[in-house]
Amino acid sequence: MKTDSRPIGVFDSGMGGLTAVKELINILPGEDIIYLGDTARVPYGTRSRETILRYAVQDFEFLKRKGVKFIIAACGTASSVMIGEEMFPKEECTGVILPAVEAACKATKNKKIGVIATGASIRSGSYERCISGIMPEAEVYSKACPMFVPLVENGYCGRDCEPAVAIAKEYLEPLRDEGIDTLILGCTHYPLLSGIIGDILGSGVKLISSGAEAGKFAKKLLAEKGLLNGRQSGGSIRLYCTDSPELFCENAERFIELDGILAEKCSLD
Amino acid sequence: MKTDSRPIGVFDSGMGGLTAVKELINILPGEDIIYLGDTARVPYGTRSRETILRYAVQDFEFLKRKGVKFIIAACGTASSVMIGEEMFPKEECTGVILPAVEAACKATKNKKIGVIATGASIRSGSYERCISGIMPEAEVYSKACPMFVPLVENGYCGRDCEPAVAIAKEYLEPLRDEGIDTLILGCTHYPLLSGIIGDILGSGVKLISSGAEAGKFAKKLLAEKGLLNGRQSGGSIRLYCTDSPELFCENAERFIELDGILAEKCSLD
Repeated sequence: MKTDSRPIGVFDSGMGGLTAVKELINILPGEDIIYLGDTARVPYGTRSRETILRYAVQDFEFLKRKGVKFIIAACGTASSVMIGEEMFPKEECTGVILPAVEAACKATKNKKIGVIATGASIRSGSYERCISGIMPEAEVYSKACPMFVPLVENGYCGRDCEPAVAIAKEYLEPLRDEGIDTLILGCTHYPLLSGIIGDILGSGVKLISSGAEAGKFAKKLLAEKGLLNGRQSGGSIRLYCTDSPELFCENAERFIELDGILAEKCSLD
Repeated sequence: MKTDSRPIGVFDSGMGGLTAVKELINILPGEDIIYLGDTARVPYGTRSRETILRYAVQDFEFLKRKGVKFIIAACGTASSVMIGEEMFPKEECTGVILPAVEAACKATKNKKIGVIATGASIRSGSYERCISGIMPEAEVYSKACPMFVPLVENGYCGRDCEPAVAIAKEYLEPLRDEGIDTLILGCTHYPLLSGIIGDILGSGVKLISSGAEAGKFAKKLLAEKGLLNGRQSGGSIRLYCTDSPELFCENAERFIELDGILAEKCSLD
C-alpha cells in the first residue's frame, strides 16, 4: 500500500481551527500535523475579500514551505474566499465549506438548511452556491453572527451566560422560525456555543461542525489518494502562530488539550 | 507668528481614533488632518506587546512619509506600548494616555480614578504608572473590557441594549463599588458606550474620553511650538485604511460624519 509520511497542514485565522485538529487527531491518530494560527491578524471575518485572500495565500504558502502533503483551511472565512481560486489546487487542499455542506445535505430531511458564519463568509455567498450545487431544491437560510467569535474568545460560552444567550436568540430565532432541521456552524469557533445554540433551536435541529467535517473529509481524500502515512498512533503536532506563543497556548486550551505542547512564532508578512 | 502648513497625522488600529479626529476638527477647524486606520489588522488590544509595537512603528512611519508635522496615536493600545520607546520622539507625537491621565487628575476630587481599556493596555500598566507619576497618592482601579470593542463595532451601544448593559455591569460595578469619581475611557471606542457607562456609574462619576483629550493636548502643544497653520477654518481631511475603503466608510459613519469623504487604501506590510 502506498503511504506518504509528510505531515498534514491546517491553518486558521487564530485558534478556532483547533476544533478541526481535534477531530483529525481522533480519526487519524498516526498522522503528523502542522498547525498555523494567524493570531497577529485574527479575525478574518470582519475583513474584505481581497485582504482575506491575501492572508490565505500567505498561510497556504507558509505550510507548503513546511513540506506538508495536504492543507486544510480550517477557517470558514478563508475557505469562503478560496473557492474557485486557482492558487489553491483542489488536489492540495480543502476548505471547510464543501465538507460541511455535504454533511448538511446528507442530514437534512425537510431540505431547509441554516448557515451561520462570519460577516465575510455570509457576504461571499459560498455556502448558498455550494448547497445549490449539491441539492438545488434546498432552501438555505443564512445569518451572519459577528458577535459569536468575540463571545467565544472572551469565555462567554456557558448555557447560562445571559448576554451570550440574548445575542444568540437574536441571531437564531429567525432561523428557527423558518423551520430549518439542519444548521451549519460555518465558523470553527461556533462549536463552543453549541450548548446555547441547541437550547434555542431544540433537539430537532442537527448541528454540523465545519471543522470536524473538514477533518473527516480530509481523511477520506487522503485515503483515496494513498497519502496516509499508515501509522495507527503516535502522530505529532507542531503549532505555529504569528503573535505571542504564550498568548496562543493560553487561549488554545479552550479548544484543545495541549499537554505541554508549545507553539512557535513565525512571520508571514 | 510662526506657522506650519503641514497636516497633523492621526492613527488608530481601526475606526475608533475618529473620535479624536472629531475633537480635532472642533477645536482646530483650520488644520489639515491625515488619518490612518489599520483596518486590515484591527484590533490591536488582543495582541502581544511586541506585535503592537511593530504595527505602531509601521503606522508612525507611514504618516511620517506623508509629511505630517505631528502625530497623534489615537489608539489606547498602541499608546500604551509606545511610552518610553525612543523611536517615538516626544516632540513628534503624543499618545492618548498622558492627555487622559492629566485630565483625570484634574477632575478627581477623592483621588480614586478608574481606568477601563483593552486587555493589552491594562496589562501594560501604563495608565497606573502615568497616574502615579502625576498624582502619587491617587488610588487607581483598572479593568480590561475586551467585549466593549466588538459590542461597539456591531452596534450594541444603546442604553436599552440588554447584552451590552449586562456585560458593562459585570465590568463596571466593581469600579463603582470602589467609589471612583473619575473614569478614564482608555480606548477610543468607549465613548460610544458612554450612555450605558453613565447609567451604571451614576452622574457623580466624570467620564474622560482619551481621544478627545488627546485632541486638546495636541492643540496646546502645537500652539506652544508655533506649529499651527494659523487658519481658522477650511481644514481638509484625508483618510487612509489598510483594508477595503468601502468597509471603512460604512463603519466610520458611527464615529464621525464623513459628508462624502472617501478613504484610500494603503499597505503597511
